[in-house]
Amino acid sequence: MTIENLSVNKSFGGWHKQYSHQSKTLNCTMRFAIYLPPHISNGSNVPVLYWLSGLTCTDENFMHKAGAQRIAAELGIAIVAPDTSPRGDDVADDEGYDLGKGAGFYVNATQAPWERHYQMYDYVVNELPQLVEATFPVSDKRAIAGHSMGGHGALTIAMRNPERYTSVSAFSPISNPLNCPWGEKAFSAYLGKDRATWREYDASELMRAATQFVPALVDQGASDDFLTEQLKPEALQSAAHASGYPLALNLYEGYDHSYYFISSFIEGHLRFHAEYLSKV
Amino acid sequence: MTIENLSVNKSFGGWHKQYSHQSKTLNCTMRFAIYLPPHISNGSNVPVLYWLSGLTCTDENFMHKAGAQRIAAELGIAIVAPDTSPRGDDVADDEGYDLGKGAGFYVNATQAPWERHYQMYDYVVNELPQLVEATFPVSDKRAIAGHSMGGHGALTIAMRNPERYTSVSAFSPISNPLNCPWGEKAFSAYLGKDRATWREYDASELMRAATQFVPALVDQGASDDFLTEQLKPEALQSAAHASGYPLALNLYEGYDHSYYFISSFIEGHLRFHAEYLSKV
Repeated sequence: MTIENLSVNKSFGGWHKQYSHQSKTLNCTMRFAIYLPPHISNGSNVPVLYWLSGLTCTDENFMHKAGAQRIAAELGIAIVAPDTSPRGDDVADDEGYDLGKGAGFYVNATQAPWERHYQMYDYVVNELPQLVEATFPVSDKRAIAGHSMGGHGALTIAMRNPERYTSVSAFSPISNPLNCPWGEKAFSAYLGKDRATWREYDASELMRAATQFVPALVDQGASDDFLTEQLKPEALQSAAHASGYPLALNLYEGYDHSYYFISSFIEGHLRFHAEYLSKV
Repeated sequence: MTIENLSVNKSFGGWHKQYSHQSKTLNCTMRFAIYLPPHISNGSNVPVLYWLSGLTCTDENFMHKAGAQRIAAELGIAIVAPDTSPRGDDVADDEGYDLGKGAGFYVNATQAPWERHYQMYDYVVNELPQLVEATFPVSDKRAIAGHSMGGHGALTIAMRNPERYTSVSAFSPISNPLNCPWGEKAFSAYLGKDRATWREYDASELMRAATQFVPALVDQGASDDFLTEQLKPEALQSAAHASGYPLALNLYEGYDHSYYFISSFIEGHLRFHAEYLSKV
């Protein structure tokens, strides 16, 4: 696994770095970012929070705007931010911002023309952690979080792999993609018309059926323009009640879908994950 | 003075807002951003920190990337971020990133074709504060800060108007534009060939000659690619020694010219300003 360093910036005593590598899972060159806290200087292996971004984002949005490095530097947590889809001139795309590049939805596509590259579920669950754990001074303790499409990704990945993640959190997740326009468009394209195959990528369906639990925190802005039509946190809440899932869901008055919301509450997410990451 | 609200985002209990207005000083439509802390909800008039950004920036860079809202919300300080130049199709421009749009250098241009619009010094010192103080629940207590070109702007504006600002701070300022390529290019264009007219816009010259003092804080990254050729903090340090200017200048190992540096140390700048803004 070759990996190329693209940039380094010192940040809160630690280091923000961008890398590119050839992904076997996605059949293309991928970029990701990692924040390494100052703790690595004394030989510590630190746990890792994976952050999955939303539609149209790259590895940069969260690192630029969330203000997470300050708290990660205090708590001794690395943060890895992958891109949101495969990239490259030969990668299938769509004119919409909500399908194709920038919109991988963290699924393994089964349909043409998407299936050759759009295997973001496997990339995030397997290839990227293997690469990160082989390359950087990190432990095998992992948490996962995300925003919007990435909140959907974080919740579904954590619930399908409860042995791999200590905790999961999301801002404004697409909570029930089977029943919203974003989900229906993307899943129809990537997974085909058989809606039975969509269920393993639906956070509310997975939460309703869950028997193994990953502690979960979800924050949602009450003034989010996408709340009613696309995000549907009430489906997640209902599913958690049905299965007894340990979900803390907070609705914050006046906040929208932007990074102004995320930055206001990211500290709580990092402290939530730190509590579980620090358990043996 | 008409002013149009363009956006609102709740942030750390306060509000980030963008506005546009027709500037008489600049003869064009200008956009600026303001962060209003939660304290305004109980009828308080809060003091204002003006933030001047660097080359190529708009009102958005600082608000997106610096992470200042968290501390401003705690301390009860509003932050105003103007654009870095006049804007519009009829505004003179240059192919370079370091002259024309995005590169106003906070001076009053005297030379064609710049002088009709490029009056950023007057805009920041007079028109913008008048508009802000007439529109928002703010007091007439002002501090000023900036980055790179905006650090130059903040230092020169504070030193030429010590009665208007309680304190000044800068990240990585262009400290001696008379003697660096960025300054020589911009001042030749905006101010003409007579270098005597440049001196009133040179922070080191002003600091060396100062008899009235505004407490000043300057932070500089030691791994900043522009340090030696463009920024020259040693000129500012030397000037402060000569006049006895109250300048605290810090050099931070490993940090570069980016917002990763600014976000790492912005808390100290806000607490520095709060100390002076809270004095009667």
